Amino acid sequence: MSKKLTKRTEDYSKWYNELVVKADLAENSGVRGCMVIKPYGYAIWEKMQAQLDKMFKETGHENAYFPLFIPKSYFSKEASHVKGFAKECAVVTHYRLKNDENGNVVVDETAKLEEELIVRPTSETIIWDTYRKWIQSYRDLPLLINQWANVVRWEMRTRLFLRTAEFLWQEGHTAHATKQEAIEEAEKMQGVYADFAEKFMAIPVIKGTKTESERFAGALDTYCIEALMQDGKALQAGTSHFLGQNFAKAFDVKFANKEGKQEYVWATSWGVSTRLMGALVMTHSDDSGLVLPPNLAPIQVVIVPIYKSEEELEAISEKANTITQELRDLGISVKFDNRTTHKPGWKFAEYELKGVPLRLAIGPRDLENNVVELARRDNLTKQSVAQEGLAVVIKEMLAQIQIDLYQKALSYRDSHITEVDTFDEFKDVLENKGGFVSAHWDGTSETEEQIKNLTKATIRCIPNSPIFEEGKCVFSGKLSTKRVLFAKAY
Amino acid sequence: MSKKLTKRTEDYSKWYNELVVKADLAENSGVRGCMVIKPYGYAIWEKMQAQLDKMFKETGHENAYFPLFIPKSYFSKEASHVKGFAKECAVVTHYRLKNDENGNVVVDETAKLEEELIVRPTSETIIWDTYRKWIQSYRDLPLLINQWANVVRWEMRTRLFLRTAEFLWQEGHTAHATKQEAIEEAEKMQGVYADFAEKFMAIPVIKGTKTESERFAGALDTYCIEALMQDGKALQAGTSHFLGQNFAKAFDVKFANKEGKQEYVWATSWGVSTRLMGALVMTHSDDSGLVLPPNLAPIQVVIVPIYKSEEELEAISEKANTITQELRDLGISVKFDNRTTHKPGWKFAEYELKGVPLRLAIGPRDLENNVVELARRDNLTKQSVAQEGLAVVIKEMLAQIQIDLYQKALSYRDSHITEVDTFDEFKDVLENKGGFVSAHWDGTSETEEQIKNLTKATIRCIPNSPIFEEGKCVFSGKLSTKRVLFAKAY
Repeated sequence: MSKKLTKRTEDYSKWYNELVVKADLAENSGVRGCMVIKPYGYAIWEKMQAQLDKMFKETGHENAYFPLFIPKSYFSKEASHVKGFAKECAVVTHYRLKNDENGNVVVDETAKLEEELIVRPTSETIIWDTYRKWIQSYRDLPLLINQWANVVRWEMRTRLFLRTAEFLWQEGHTAHATKQEAIEEAEKMQGVYADFAEKFMAIPVIKGTKTESERFAGALDTYCIEALMQDGKALQAGTSHFLGQNFAKAFDVKFANKEGKQEYVWATSWGVSTRLMGALVMTHSDDSGLVLPPNLAPIQVVIVPIYKSEEELEAISEKANTITQELRDLGISVKFDNRTTHKPGWKFAEYELKGVPLRLAIGPRDLENNVVELARRDNLTKQSVAQEGLAVVIKEMLAQIQIDLYQKALSYRDSHITEVDTFDEFKDVLENKGGFVSAHWDGTSETEEQIKNLTKATIRCIPNSPIFEEGKCVFSGKLSTKRVLFAKAY
Repeated sequence: MSKKLTKRTEDYSKWYNELVVKADLAENSGVRGCMVIKPYGYAIWEKMQAQLDKMFKETGHENAYFPLFIPKSYFSKEASHVKGFAKECAVVTHYRLKNDENGNVVVDETAKLEEELIVRPTSETIIWDTYRKWIQSYRDLPLLINQWANVVRWEMRTRLFLRTAEFLWQEGHTAHATKQEAIEEAEKMQGVYADFAEKFMAIPVIKGTKTESERFAGALDTYCIEALMQDGKALQAGTSHFLGQNFAKAFDVKFANKEGKQEYVWATSWGVSTRLMGALVMTHSDDSGLVLPPNLAPIQVVIVPIYKSEEELEAISEKANTITQELRDLGISVKFDNRTTHKPGWKFAEYELKGVPLRLAIGPRDLENNVVELARRDNLTKQSVAQEGLAVVIKEMLAQIQIDLYQKALSYRDSHITEVDTFDEFKDVLENKGGFVSAHWDGTSETEEQIKNLTKATIRCIPNSPIFEEGKCVFSGKLSTKRVLFAKAY
């Protein structure tokens, strides 16, 4: 398979699809809409998981595991929730296969379930059905639980990582004694997600809330973080929901407060998924392949020997092994690719495609001069660096790459937030420049809907700290007190 | 809920069920046969996962993720595999729900899948369908992949951890160029499982192979580790399968060898599951509750203050915080339970129930005397220990507990392997003593089947290093060259 990618300017969508497959992140499976996450892609996801899990635990959460299946009747209990999710579910109706008279494997019709089971699209219902047993008194609150799991939402048009029938995610589900505490929790987790996106994924995000029509089915408020991809389309990278008492009422979860009175419990839920892999790819990568921030790269430094004879390889290997050990001692993950089956040029292209942040090459002349050649993947620059003190230099360089990637993405994002005051400008920016359009909106779902139908742009969020500013809705001309962010989105 | 458990001698099975629920490990959910793994139980499972994952990576394996669903037709491709698994599967037939005229949520009959999807009971078929695309040449081998996942096997009679419709597990799936290499891999992973069981779970295991009738559906050889529970029943704690070329042939997975000739690939698969939680509980625990080996305990040391006045609590807390920090510096996980809502006696019972290996109590008199009281959960002994050098003493004590638990389990196990030479003795030992029965067997499935029907005992394994010994089959009287291990089993 050729390693050459379609150029982003030619066909951004094709570039993305090719990159995900060629960089060994994921591929389509024989099952419609379900992906295989390949070892290299999964290694990045594991790094994300480990960091997020640490952050969840540091904020007092514990992991648990709830059933994959949800009885159909559970879905009907929260009216807006069923409306939002029931249309796209995998439904288990039977529990046995058998051989028919011709020896073919068929569904055993005698093994029909009394009540159909839904493969979880999200777990609020089964979890709140469980919380009823766990919560009696204010002493049992708050309940701060997270689950790492697979979920299924039947999607007609799928794309690797961005939209798949099955995906991996974490879902936090917390229970609180007061409304205020639940809102604070939802906001706190939005903050955790934003920190993770910025410090680990090197992706700048805008924190805000969703409009009513973009909210999670069953939520009173949805807090989100919104990122901007290189093609000017927005991507929702994580959401945190204040669910009020909706699920507590649907599943009859009450607690005795300090005065002994029964009250309904307040809830939040929050999640990020393997969709983040798509955001990571689309924020930093280029026409040569993946670009990974060092904080999430499975291999941070690759060492490639340049040699003609076996003796040269031996001498280089000795040095490379020393460097490898010094780097590992500093907690840096290194791969020394001493395969004799592939040429250096092939290896260079391979690690560029896979986004390894730093490539270290050593040839016989470098050995003589006590130097190595370091090549940064993010800006494709090369330099000769002394072997003396190399490990520390590399550590600093990795930190610098992490910062530079964030700054580059930030500059792009900031130069793609455009304030407009007329609908003509609005359409023009969306059409020709892309990015976020900051505009006044009259606050009605009707206007939002009409703008969406005309331009495909949706309100990505109402920013958390909007500046109070009197203005007129860009579409209806009605009065407005703040700007919101529109964009076309993934 | 009372913390008092049924005694093991009264009703072992009831004791187990109560303990799992009362120690907050797991509980039944509203979904038939599916359990909820509670935070404390999940924390133990996470420790198991982390250690196993480390051992898999150290032996060269990488993680990946394959689809939850498997098209029905995939199952038919490997004849013995479908026979073993197709009878107990969750079958997805539809992909949408809708509201009927009365507003009830019903399955949308227009959204019927062309081909039914099976919720994976194990992933050989979907993985080998993928490997066909990944393997072309001997350079692509070996392929050493593991997956952490949930699987579903429809079970009629379920028990928390031991037998549930959905369970969590890892499944390794490797591909090799030669038969020899695949067999070595299967044996290596049996060794990894045995190491893990003995060093982390403190459970002695017998390594062996399964007889034909007990083999994994599709395997040529199944390597297993067998443990013995306190009630004298055996439990299969992990299996590793040599699959020959069965799946490669079924899914047409060939590679070009060094000479350029096409050959079928050789396969292994191996797995352990949340069933290990059941083994852990049943090996060490007692009538007061759970007993956890320190290497897998989420909390290794709990500090309980004994006080009357606030001032006393304050003084104790100061000391407790110092000790906590010293222990954490040594990598020991500590909880200081300074809750004022519960009395020390309640806390003692709570942590006994939850199997925390060491309890450290401090009262005002201990403060005066510069001592603390240490209580070991495993043997329920207490001693007064000087505060000076306490952290190191505790670290050593935890290591000692780990050893003692293993030794205790080993003595029990070794005293429950009984050699018998007649079928009367065989039945007598099974009935009155329990444990493994070491007996000659004629090597036929018929004899195995008849013994099972008469006694409920199965051949747990043919030990890896059997001593060559001429004898006569305990049932048929036919000649035999080695003893095998029979037992009643979970």
